Amino acid sequence: MSLLKAAIIGGGHIADQNHIPALKALKDQVEVIAVCSRDINKARALAEKYNIPFAFDSAEEMFNNEQKPDLVINCTANNLHYPYTMQALENGCHVLCEKPPAMNAKEAKEMADLAQEKGKVLAYNFQRRQSPEYILLQKFLQQGRFGEVYHIKANFLRRRGIPGWGNFTNKAIQGGGALIDLGVHVLDLALGMLDYQMPDRIVANVYDFIGKAGGKGLKGDWDPEKFEVEDACFAYLSFPDNASIMLSSSFALNRQEEETVNLEVFGTKSGAILRPLSIFTEVAGELADVSFPYLTETDIQLQNTTAFVDACNGKASNICSAEEGAILQEIIERIYQSAK
Amino acid sequence: MSLLKAAIIGGGHIADQNHIPALKALKDQVEVIAVCSRDINKARALAEKYNIPFAFDSAEEMFNNEQKPDLVINCTANNLHYPYTMQALENGCHVLCEKPPAMNAKEAKEMADLAQEKGKVLAYNFQRRQSPEYILLQKFLQQGRFGEVYHIKANFLRRRGIPGWGNFTNKAIQGGGALIDLGVHVLDLALGMLDYQMPDRIVANVYDFIGKAGGKGLKGDWDPEKFEVEDACFAYLSFPDNASIMLSSSFALNRQEEETVNLEVFGTKSGAILRPLSIFTEVAGELADVSFPYLTETDIQLQNTTAFVDACNGKASNICSAEEGAILQEIIERIYQSAK
Amino acid sequence: MSLLKAAIIGGGHIADQNHIPALKALKDQVEVIAVCSRDINKARALAEKYNIPFAFDSAEEMFNNEQKPDLVINCTANNLHYPYTMQALENGCHVLCEKPPAMNAKEAKEMADLAQEKGKVLAYNFQRRQSPEYILLQKFLQQGRFGEVYHIKANFLRRRGIPGWGNFTNKAIQGGGALIDLGVHVLDLALGMLDYQMPDRIVANVYDFIGKAGGKGLKGDWDPEKFEVEDACFAYLSFPDNASIMLSSSFALNRQEEETVNLEVFGTKSGAILRPLSIFTEVAGELADVSFPYLTETDIQLQNTTAFVDACNGKASNICSAEEGAILQEIIERIYQSAK
Amino acid sequence: MSLLKAAIIGGGHIADQNHIPALKALKDQVEVIAVCSRDINKARALAEKYNIPFAFDSAEEMFNNEQKPDLVINCTANNLHYPYTMQALENGCHVLCEKPPAMNAKEAKEMADLAQEKGKVLAYNFQRRQSPEYILLQKFLQQGRFGEVYHIKANFLRRRGIPGWGNFTNKAIQGGGALIDLGVHVLDLALGMLDYQMPDRIVANVYDFIGKAGGKGLKGDWDPEKFEVEDACFAYLSFPDNASIMLSSSFALNRQEEETVNLEVFGTKSGAILRPLSIFTEVAGELADVSFPYLTETDIQLQNTTAFVDACNGKASNICSAEEGAILQEIIERIYQSAK
Amino acid sequence: MSLLKAAIIGGGHIADQNHIPALKALKDQVEVIAVCSRDINKARALAEKYNIPFAFDSAEEMFNNEQKPDLVINCTANNLHYPYTMQALENGCHVLCEKPPAMNAKEAKEMADLAQEKGKVLAYNFQRRQSPEYILLQKFLQQGRFGEVYHIKANFLRRRGIPGWGNFTNKAIQGGGALIDLGVHVLDLALGMLDYQMPDRIVANVYDFIGKAGGKGLKGDWDPEKFEVEDACFAYLSFPDNASIMLSSSFALNRQEEETVNLEVFGTKSGAILRPLSIFTEVAGELADVSFPYLTETDIQLQNTTAFVDACNGKASNICSAEEGAILQEIIERIYQSAK
Amino acid sequence: MSLLKAAIIGGGHIADQNHIPALKALKDQVEVIAVCSRDINKARALAEKYNIPFAFDSAEEMFNNEQKPDLVINCTANNLHYPYTMQALENGCHVLCEKPPAMNAKEAKEMADLAQEKGKVLAYNFQRRQSPEYILLQKFLQQGRFGEVYHIKANFLRRRGIPGWGNFTNKAIQGGGALIDLGVHVLDLALGMLDYQMPDRIVANVYDFIGKAGGKGLKGDWDPEKFEVEDACFAYLSFPDNASIMLSSSFALNRQEEETVNLEVFGTKSGAILRPLSIFTEVAGELADVSFPYLTETDIQLQNTTAFVDACNGKASNICSAEEGAILQEIIERIYQSAK
Repeated sequence: MSLLKAAIIGGGHIADQNHIPALKALKDQVEVIAVCSRDINKARALAEKYNIPFAFDSAEEMFNNEQKPDLVINCTANNLHYPYTMQALENGCHVLCEKPPAMNAKEAKEMADLAQEKGKVLAYNFQRRQSPEYILLQKFLQQGRFGEVYHIKANFLRRRGIPGWGNFTNKAIQGGGALIDLGVHVLDLALGMLDYQMPDRIVANVYDFIGKAGGKGLKGDWDPEKFEVEDACFAYLSFPDNASIMLSSSFALNRQEEETVNLEVFGTKSGAILRPLSIFTEVAGELADVSFPYLTETDIQLQNTTAFVDACNGKASNICSAEEGAILQEIIERIYQSAK
Repeated sequence: MSLLKAAIIGGGHIADQNHIPALKALKDQVEVIAVCSRDINKARALAEKYNIPFAFDSAEEMFNNEQKPDLVINCTANNLHYPYTMQALENGCHVLCEKPPAMNAKEAKEMADLAQEKGKVLAYNFQRRQSPEYILLQKFLQQGRFGEVYHIKANFLRRRGIPGWGNFTNKAIQGGGALIDLGVHVLDLALGMLDYQMPDRIVANVYDFIGKAGGKGLKGDWDPEKFEVEDACFAYLSFPDNASIMLSSSFALNRQEEETVNLEVFGTKSGAILRPLSIFTEVAGELADVSFPYLTETDIQLQNTTAFVDACNGKASNICSAEEGAILQEIIERIYQSAK
Repeated sequence: MSLLKAAIIGGGHIADQNHIPALKALKDQVEVIAVCSRDINKARALAEKYNIPFAFDSAEEMFNNEQKPDLVINCTANNLHYPYTMQALENGCHVLCEKPPAMNAKEAKEMADLAQEKGKVLAYNFQRRQSPEYILLQKFLQQGRFGEVYHIKANFLRRRGIPGWGNFTNKAIQGGGALIDLGVHVLDLALGMLDYQMPDRIVANVYDFIGKAGGKGLKGDWDPEKFEVEDACFAYLSFPDNASIMLSSSFALNRQEEETVNLEVFGTKSGAILRPLSIFTEVAGELADVSFPYLTETDIQLQNTTAFVDACNGKASNICSAEEGAILQEIIERIYQSAK
Repeated sequence: MSLLKAAIIGGGHIADQNHIPALKALKDQVEVIAVCSRDINKARALAEKYNIPFAFDSAEEMFNNEQKPDLVINCTANNLHYPYTMQALENGCHVLCEKPPAMNAKEAKEMADLAQEKGKVLAYNFQRRQSPEYILLQKFLQQGRFGEVYHIKANFLRRRGIPGWGNFTNKAIQGGGALIDLGVHVLDLALGMLDYQMPDRIVANVYDFIGKAGGKGLKGDWDPEKFEVEDACFAYLSFPDNASIMLSSSFALNRQEEETVNLEVFGTKSGAILRPLSIFTEVAGELADVSFPYLTETDIQLQNTTAFVDACNGKASNICSAEEGAILQEIIERIYQSAK
Repeated sequence: MSLLKAAIIGGGHIADQNHIPALKALKDQVEVIAVCSRDINKARALAEKYNIPFAFDSAEEMFNNEQKPDLVINCTANNLHYPYTMQALENGCHVLCEKPPAMNAKEAKEMADLAQEKGKVLAYNFQRRQSPEYILLQKFLQQGRFGEVYHIKANFLRRRGIPGWGNFTNKAIQGGGALIDLGVHVLDLALGMLDYQMPDRIVANVYDFIGKAGGKGLKGDWDPEKFEVEDACFAYLSFPDNASIMLSSSFALNRQEEETVNLEVFGTKSGAILRPLSIFTEVAGELADVSFPYLTETDIQLQNTTAFVDACNGKASNICSAEEGAILQEIIERIYQSAK
Repeated sequence: MSLLKAAIIGGGHIADQNHIPALKALKDQVEVIAVCSRDINKARALAEKYNIPFAFDSAEEMFNNEQKPDLVINCTANNLHYPYTMQALENGCHVLCEKPPAMNAKEAKEMADLAQEKGKVLAYNFQRRQSPEYILLQKFLQQGRFGEVYHIKANFLRRRGIPGWGNFTNKAIQGGGALIDLGVHVLDLALGMLDYQMPDRIVANVYDFIGKAGGKGLKGDWDPEKFEVEDACFAYLSFPDNASIMLSSSFALNRQEEETVNLEVFGTKSGAILRPLSIFTEVAGELADVSFPYLTETDIQLQNTTAFVDACNGKASNICSAEEGAILQEIIERIYQSAK
């Protein structure tokens, strides 16, 4: 089998630390041929570091190069997910796009439509799906161990975790705050336990008190003057089959723990928490708690990139699909609308 | 000051264990003159045990007796809260009625209206308001230590706590299940942190999977055939000032702890959990956690009865008022409506 | 159904605290008609305390009384298990005999033979079979959750628990020490996990160093001069099907915990420890530990007496049978022989 | 004093990581002159890495070289312990041989005999003797703090620790499984507390259920098809002076902990556990537990190599001697015979 | 041996709960013949409750009664220790006097002198000497396990433990506050580890900030207006042989624990803390910590009364003697003087 | 602003690891121009390692060099603090001198006087003042949260921490032992909470039992023959305003923990412990404990060097001043005098 040719759009930390190393680890299936960044110096530095043949400061130029990529990793800022992904699809590439899918539902829908039209894989990089805990949750679900799942509490909460770097508080670039950056992860995991349905009822609130007031930061110091997004978002989702999700996300909230990322899943036969993975059920007529003390941490980015490459090769894969991404983005949009 | 004459309607466990002992402990202010139960034997047994002059099996008879009560404790089944409270108010008595206020919003509204018309105190027995932890939460709120409270998580959750006795699973008598029996307590506490506003948006779901399926019980065995109420209720309340509440209650849910009754309060300056009472805040520019290791447990029923008697005597009091009860009942009704 | 008539032989603590209360609790099935003790005062005191019609100081007299017992509880000293049980069987009674079955294998074999000949139930009071943990272990075994059980560690170990009262250190009365008084319990439980087979190989050692040296006692002070039994016994049992048991029992051993009573069970699919009951297994391809945090303690003597009465009434029952008792006693005898 | 010339036979991991570094650390006493491996590339790589003058792929060649070794480290596979050790002794070398001593008792006996005949030191690399905990246990024993030691429980147990690499499951190369690879360590330690006596009674069982069934591995994945050894071995040893040992070892067993390596020692005056080292005794008439919170971890391989070099230099040493090795190997053989 | 006749002076809680029950438990050696209280009703109530022949409201009358006591328990207020003890000694009685010995050094000296002159036992009720932990400390001291003890930290510290009852804050009655009521206990224990020497250097400070300011009380509410004593006292004692004591006592101090009563003892060979009793020493050249997990709580008042009766009967005893009491009182007086 | 020129006197570990790196980190304010050590090789090695222009073995030479330092770090042995600091001041330099200030009070007084005369900054390197916990303690003090501080327990205690290297046990070089090396740190912190007053009463004792007896060492092995200083020092300080300090320091003491460095501060409104920083106070009428779970460790040497440079630049700074150092040294001298 010939190697898939891969290109990277985006020259930041996540390209350097996550995506390129993952692709390089899949060298039996993928060859990285180009990296593209608006800052040509960044592109060249990465190309040199990772021994990548081409570096560009223009996607157009990259796609016009003689060596054409088969797949593209789009790890640019949130507001560039749409244009670069569309461009890559138009150029006949599979695309693995960073999360969130886009800035709004319309963009995500167009991206999914174009992928389908072009017959290409478009996937989103929700790599937390690959944790051994979530893989097991999914396996339990498929084995029917939960019975019917009817309620989920999904939390991604930080006490004082407004990032003091990057564009995390810039609404025009990010499209939002705690929900679109953090909550989106656990929302994806929760939806994955509920057949990725579209909810029929959503109510939500957003807040920015602490972000705008300033104070002690545990992820660097942020500038309250430039804080334009929500520091906390709470939402309730109710589904046509009567399932429900309570979603809580925060950059900053006056709570005890520094950070909590967890799912509580409630089913008719069993319930579970994601971390540390525990199942609450009945065994032989008695209430039983099941723990998994020997789960092995894996490289979840590598697992997710592998899942994407599998999809490109036509194999079954648990990657977040273009359709799922469109549903997710629409839910996010509706949450923000409800919170206005 | 002459003693207030008190009568009890309802001859069950809660009369025997909670209300009569509390009244007896207030013997400098209250004299218990009568107990009334549809089962005259229960009434007589209580009268003998507590040295109460009169025992009746008819409230009408009781009110027609020469010795007229000044105040009445209504500790009958939920579906009798309305008729007996109305009768007592008509007879010119102050009333302390067990929770929930009534079976629906209309009843609770009429009860509040009649109390106002008659100029009598009508109060509901939400005794958890009297815990030292909640008293302190309220004090912090009034001292401005929280700043503005904008989100509350209110939980009354049991793993397998469907009562195997009484009428807790009978819808006609109880009016509902986990929400009206358990959730109502923490909802009252949460509303008390938010000026007892009426929410403008409510969305909710109820479930009865475990109740109808049966299984291991931690509060006796229940009959799944006769399980008519919800075993779990989740609701989201959003308020005109943008505050929000996530309310979770369950008789049965596949979770780890046997029972959790707690409030998480998030304010602009500080947050808190109710039990064990802890405040999460900033002190001198650093994140600080404040604990209260020496809170003394008190007899919360006695405290609540005292609050009621204070109200009867025209004193300020933190008892749940007739107006608050009407708001609470309307919210419960709207939660159930949303969940249909 | 008419009531079974019960008689007690033995007027000691165990009659007073365990057996008579259990029989009294089964008053719908059993009527206690007589108590017999060589000390007539003890017999009379129990008869009065429990409202039992007859008190005797001679078993012969008791059996010759007009009111004949249907069943007998033999709770005398170890060396009287054989004669009184034989006498009771000869008199056509079912017998529940205290543990150990007898002083040696020959006695236990004769007791089992006579019971069979007479068509009566003879059972031994190994009440630890009735703990909720062991009941579950048995259920798991029958459900095949262990696969094949091939090794068991059975421990009943005390640091300094030589009883300072009774006849526990008197060899002529007790027949032995730590093994026959303590180890016998966990040996019975272990054999119950292995089809109560007879081992084909046994090797063992007994010790009496601490018992004879004296020292600090945690169950009263004992007299080293009168210490005639083993203070510790270690044995290894190997079975024809290749299963094995490591059995450890001690009255006194220089170890950390005051007392340990436990079973470790190793099967091909799962392993377990008895207390706190935990299962070590694989779930969905991952190593999993299962705990049972809500087991309810029960009155194990009442459960065992019930099992005995069920057996008397011809029902299935998990009581230790005469045949099992004979096997157990033979193993004990072979352990002591190996240790000589 | 002139330096001892050392040669290594065996070019594997243990030579590279343990033996050569230890010898190098003793550079004031030892000079490493040669390394020999059937794979000459391995020998050469080690020679280069550690600056060793000679590399060979034949032991014969090595012994015929002009530079003759004074001592040899035999760290080959188990089935080569005998031939290379015999060859080294024949060539007048002291030998430190890896554990187990040999494949059977006859080999170990011949090795000890030849060492004696040649007047050379033959020792086995039971480096766990050098842990600070065991050194202290030995010191307590010699000071009489235990009184007489009469029972030891020796455990080397893994939950799922069948090595997924090397020859650990190959019977022809290893000679056995959990006993000969793991149990042998704690058996050596236990015998060291009992004057290295020969037991007069042994009974044992071995199992291979999990090894042959396959499943989750915590030390890599193993091939159940090629699993030829025991995955668990339980044995009971009784000694002429009435002492006893319960020995348990497993590569795989359905238990809680991932790995347990421990000794419980029971003496007439005190007992102990090895890790964390604790003594259970009486002080001033009260039961006392003694802990040692400040023991310093040492490099036990370096300590053991030092002990061997001390022995070569005629100094007293706690190294496992040829005679002890022969006893140990005979016990292992008898355990396997008993288990057949 | 005829029974010793005992009389009680003082009709308060401590007579009722401690001293009379202890004397009654020693009924083979002591007969309680009289109780005396300035409040005759208290005296009569105790006499009736405990079946004591005589009740008086005057000590003079009691001593003039025909039945003469052999020994007297003086459990009156601090300012009455001196007059009643002197009177009892004058009347030829042995005396067990509550702590502190007296109001000042002069009184305690006269009491000791008179006891010696009369040849009677005078002892003080420092019952904490009888705890199993302190008994062991003393045994270790006598066995030489500490080597030479050179420094002790003695603490009796409460966070907010000003008693809300009794006369504890009244200087005229009590003679002082935290030092004379609480610190005196641990000072007695510390001196007992140092041969009850008289220090040659003392420096101290007393405080009453919290007592006079008021606040939350954990032993009832006290009246800051009537707070006349020290709420905290810190003192340093240096002895002629160079040993030293740091003594800290408080009724109220802004610290974490509610109450700490402890001794840290530092000797040349070992150190110790009293509770939980632990020894810090070297064993076999390694630092070792020794704990005593099975110490049995005893009735320390009964033990101390027994020690007093033993002394009356001329037996050796660890009771606080008149001479020790005089030394202790002088030290207390010097501490208060230093603190002025 | 031009750079300050810095010179280092002392070529040991503390110059290499602490002072030069701190100065280098302040490269925008300071330029290191010279290092001076009596061992010219050390000086040259440091100069090369840190790219420092000049290396000297004579301070005189250094001060006579054309490039004159503006500030000097004196990190020589204790007995050289005085001469080199005086020389540096005479040469018109600011000086940061290692602790303790000097060998006796007279030296420290002269050093302070000369600094004042020369108008130069003389400061001592008590870098523990810069821990985030102590910075907060000071902030609380200034905010009045403690009310009046009246008692402090200051401890720097090691179990067996006599350094096995350097000159720590040499009296002529060090001037003392545990007090001058360890206790001086916590004494400085304690005085900083009490306005750096001079106490009016001091009593103290010193000991050298363990140091002279030898034994297990946790900081290397020391030579008991050459142990000339105190291994423990206990002192009590009382101040004119009635505040008091209990100061305990040890190199070696038979206690549990390996090392304790802490302050307990008792004020009229609140108390505190330094590590982990906790405040004990009243909030809303209830006793409250405040913890600070997110304090960030800082580089305290860098912070202290910064404070010194700030002082040199005329800015406010919390550095230990020449006057404070003189007070501290006088207290140390008086403690040693008291202990003689």
